[in-house]
Amino acid sequence: MTLDLPRRLVAEALGTAMLVAAVIGSGIMADRLTDDVALALLGNTIPTGAILVVLITILGPVSGAHFNPAVTLVFGLRREIETKAALAYVLAQIAGGIAGTLIAHAMFGLPLVELSTTVRSGTGQWIAELVASFGLVFTILAGLRARPDSIPWLVGLYITAAYWFTASTSFANPAVAVARAFSNTFAGIRPLDVPAFIVAELAGALLAMALAGWLLAEPKPLPQMRPTA
Amino acid sequence: MTLDLPRRLVAEALGTAMLVAAVIGSGIMADRLTDDVALALLGNTIPTGAILVVLITILGPVSGAHFNPAVTLVFGLRREIETKAALAYVLAQIAGGIAGTLIAHAMFGLPLVELSTTVRSGTGQWIAELVASFGLVFTILAGLRARPDSIPWLVGLYITAAYWFTASTSFANPAVAVARAFSNTFAGIRPLDVPAFIVAELAGALLAMALAGWLLAEPKPLPQMRPTA
Amino acid sequence: MTLDLPRRLVAEALGTAMLVAAVIGSGIMADRLTDDVALALLGNTIPTGAILVVLITILGPVSGAHFNPAVTLVFGLRREIETKAALAYVLAQIAGGIAGTLIAHAMFGLPLVELSTTVRSGTGQWIAELVASFGLVFTILAGLRARPDSIPWLVGLYITAAYWFTASTSFANPAVAVARAFSNTFAGIRPLDVPAFIVAELAGALLAMALAGWLLAEPKPLPQMRPTA
Amino acid sequence: MTLDLPRRLVAEALGTAMLVAAVIGSGIMADRLTDDVALALLGNTIPTGAILVVLITILGPVSGAHFNPAVTLVFGLRREIETKAALAYVLAQIAGGIAGTLIAHAMFGLPLVELSTTVRSGTGQWIAELVASFGLVFTILAGLRARPDSIPWLVGLYITAAYWFTASTSFANPAVAVARAFSNTFAGIRPLDVPAFIVAELAGALLAMALAGWLLAEPKPLPQMRPTA
Repeated sequence: MTLDLPRRLVAEALGTAMLVAAVIGSGIMADRLTDDVALALLGNTIPTGAILVVLITILGPVSGAHFNPAVTLVFGLRREIETKAALAYVLAQIAGGIAGTLIAHAMFGLPLVELSTTVRSGTGQWIAELVASFGLVFTILAGLRARPDSIPWLVGLYITAAYWFTASTSFANPAVAVARAFSNTFAGIRPLDVPAFIVAELAGALLAMALAGWLLAEPKPLPQMRPTA
Repeated sequence: MTLDLPRRLVAEALGTAMLVAAVIGSGIMADRLTDDVALALLGNTIPTGAILVVLITILGPVSGAHFNPAVTLVFGLRREIETKAALAYVLAQIAGGIAGTLIAHAMFGLPLVELSTTVRSGTGQWIAELVASFGLVFTILAGLRARPDSIPWLVGLYITAAYWFTASTSFANPAVAVARAFSNTFAGIRPLDVPAFIVAELAGALLAMALAGWLLAEPKPLPQMRPTA
Repeated sequence: MTLDLPRRLVAEALGTAMLVAAVIGSGIMADRLTDDVALALLGNTIPTGAILVVLITILGPVSGAHFNPAVTLVFGLRREIETKAALAYVLAQIAGGIAGTLIAHAMFGLPLVELSTTVRSGTGQWIAELVASFGLVFTILAGLRARPDSIPWLVGLYITAAYWFTASTSFANPAVAVARAFSNTFAGIRPLDVPAFIVAELAGALLAMALAGWLLAEPKPLPQMRPTA
Repeated sequence: MTLDLPRRLVAEALGTAMLVAAVIGSGIMADRLTDDVALALLGNTIPTGAILVVLITILGPVSGAHFNPAVTLVFGLRREIETKAALAYVLAQIAGGIAGTLIAHAMFGLPLVELSTTVRSGTGQWIAELVASFGLVFTILAGLRARPDSIPWLVGLYITAAYWFTASTSFANPAVAVARAFSNTFAGIRPLDVPAFIVAELAGALLAMALAGWLLAEPKPLPQMRPTA
C-alpha cells in the first residue's frame, strides 16, 4: 500500500464526480443545443471519452482510477485490492457520482436533485449493458497485460465506441447508473430501471473476468506480469 | 509462437465479433437517431475507429489481432503465419464476425439474422474496395516497419479516414463483409454483392504487399533514415 | 532557467495568439456554416482541443506553454516561476490573445476589433467557470505528477470535454476571456461579463492548487503506486 | 542518404496521392450525404487529419514525409535536403497529388479530371493561407525540436484545427492546391485562384522558418539537436 486510504477514497470520489458531471453536463448542453438526437449523443460521447482519458491518467497513480464498482469488484475478486478497501471504494464512487450530478445541475441552473423519468428497460437494454460491461472489463484486464500505460486511452476509446454500438449507450458502471437516476435530463435513467442495469453490469464484468482468466493465462514468458490471483 | 492455437483462435473470433458488433451496432444506433446520412456515417465511423485501436492493442499480443482474412492472407504469403493456422484464423474470423452480427441484433431487438438488401456494386465501389484494402495493408506493413507499437492507432485512424474517402465506406475485410451481409441495417451489404467485394479486397491487399516488398526493402541496417543529404 | 525571457515571452504571446485565433476563427467558421448550435459548438471544440495539443507540445520546451494567467498564477505561487517573469507572462498572454482576435477577424473579413454583445452571466455561468478552471489546473498539476509528457494531450482532451460539460463552454482562461470580449462572434463575451469570469477562474485555479497540494502530497519516493492492497 | 532517391520519390508521390484522395474523396462523400455545410466540413476534416497521422508515420522513415512543396522548400533552405532532390520531391508531390485526384474521381464515378469553379480569392483568403502555412511549418520546425516522434500527430492535429480556424480551410500545400484545382467538388479551387494561394503559402512558410530560426535558436544545451543550418 503506498498511499493512505483517505487520499485514495477522495481520488475515487473526485474522479467519479468529474466523470458524472461530464456525462450529465454534456448531455444537458447537447440536448439544449440541437434537436438531432444523434448529434446530441455525439456531443455526449466525445466529452465522456475525453474526460475518461484525463481522469484515469491523472488519478491512476493515486487510487488506481476505478471510478466504477464493477471494476472494483473484479479487482477485489482478483485480490488486487483488499475487501475492506474495496467496499470503501464503492461507497466513495457512489457518493462522488451523486456529487457529480449536483455539480452538473448547479452549472446548468437545474434543481440539484431530480428523479429521472427516462425508461431504460427490456431484454435488449439488459443484453446491451452486459455486453458493454463485458467489453469494458475485458479491455481493462487485457489492456493491463498488453500495455498498462495505455489503459486511459483504451478505456476512453472503448466507452466512446460503446456509447454507440450498445443499445443502452453503455452505462457499464453501477455508481454512474445510480448518479444518473437523479438527473431528469438526456443522460438520466428511471430509478426503477437501475437495479436490472446493475445486475447486467456485474454479470458482464464477471464474464469478462472469467474469459480473461483463461484467454490471457499464458502470455509470453515475460519477466513481469500482473498476478491473476 | 508463444500461445497455443485455441487461445489465438478465440482471440481472433472475439476480436472480429466485437469489431462487427461495433460496426453494425453503431450503424443501427446512428440510423435510428438521425435523418442526416453524413451524421449517421460519423456515428458509424468514430466507434469503428475507436474500437479498432482498443481491440488491436489488447488482443495483438494474443493472436496478432488480424481480424481480417486479407491481412491473414498477406501474413501467410510472407510466411509470418503458417498455412494451417492461417486457414483456422480465417474460419475463426468469419465465425466471430457472424456472431458479432447476432450480438448487435440482439441488443437492438432485431431478428438475429437478416439478409441485407443494400446494393453495393459497380466499378466505383470495386475500385474503392481495392483502394481501401490496398491502403489498409500498406499501412500495416509500412507501420510495422516504421513504428510497430503504433499499429493499433494507425489502423484505427486509417479506417476512420477510409470510411469517408472511399466510395464504399471501406469494408476492406472479407470476414466483416460476410458478417454485414446478414444485417439489413445501415452497415449491411446484399449477399450477392459480397463476392466482388472480396475479390477487390484481396486484390488490393496483394497489391499493397507487392509495393511494400519493393518500397520498404532496405530498411533496418541504417542508424537513421531521415534524408539529411 | 534555460531560455532568455524575451524568447519565453514571445512564445507565450505566440501560443496565446494561435489559441485565440483557433477559438474565435473556428467559432466564426462553424457559425457561418450551420444553423445547428450543437454542430457549431462541435466545430469550435475539435479545433480548440487539437490546437492545444499542438501548441503545448511545441512551445512547452520554450516557455512552459502556460498561455493562461490562471496557470501562471498557480506556478508563481508554487514558486516554479519567479514573480517578475510571471507578471511579464501575463502581459504577453493578454497581448497575444488580443492579437489572436485581430488575426481571426482579418482572415474572416471582419472589423479587426469589435465589442461582444453576448451575455454570459449568472450563478450557473460562474459556477461553471469555477469548475472549468478547477478541473484544468487540477489536470495540469496531477498530470505533471502522473505523466508529464502527456500534459499536451491531457489539456487538449480536458478542454474538449469542458466545452460541453460546463454551462459556460469553459473559458477557464482570463487572457482568452479578455481577447474574446473583442469579438462579436460565436465565441464572444460581453466586456461587462469578463471580470466575474476572471474572478471565478482564479478561484477555481486556487481551489485546485489547494486540493492538489494535499491529495498529491506524497508521491515520489515510492517505486510503484497502484494500490495492491 | 540512406534510401535511394527513386524509393523516396515514390514515397512522396504515394503519400501525396493518398492525402489528396482522402481530402477530395471525403469532401465528395460528405457533400453527397448532407446539406449542412458544417457537417460536410467535419466529414472532410476528420479523414484528412487521420490520414495525415498515418501517412507521416509510415512514410516518414522512407522520404521524410514532406508531401508538400512548402515544406520541402524550407528543408531545402535549411540544407536538410539537397537542391536536386528537393526539386524532384516537388515534382513527385505534384504528380502524386494529381494522381490522388484521379483516384478519388474514379471511386466516386466522376470524370477523372475536371476544372474547379469554386472561387477562393480575396484578402481574407490570402491572409488565411499565409497564417495556415505559417502555423504548419512552425509546428513542424518547433515539433522536430520538442518531440520529433510526435510530428505525425502534431501535423494531423494542426490541420484538423486549421480546416476550421482559417477562412480558407487551410490548403497550406501548393501540390495539394494544384491537385484540388482538377476537382470540381467540395474541396476544389478554381485554377485561376491557385497562384495567389501558392504565393501566400510560400510566404507563410518562409515567415515560420525565420521566426523559428530565432525563437528556437538556443534550446536547453541538449546533447543533440537538429541543425538549423
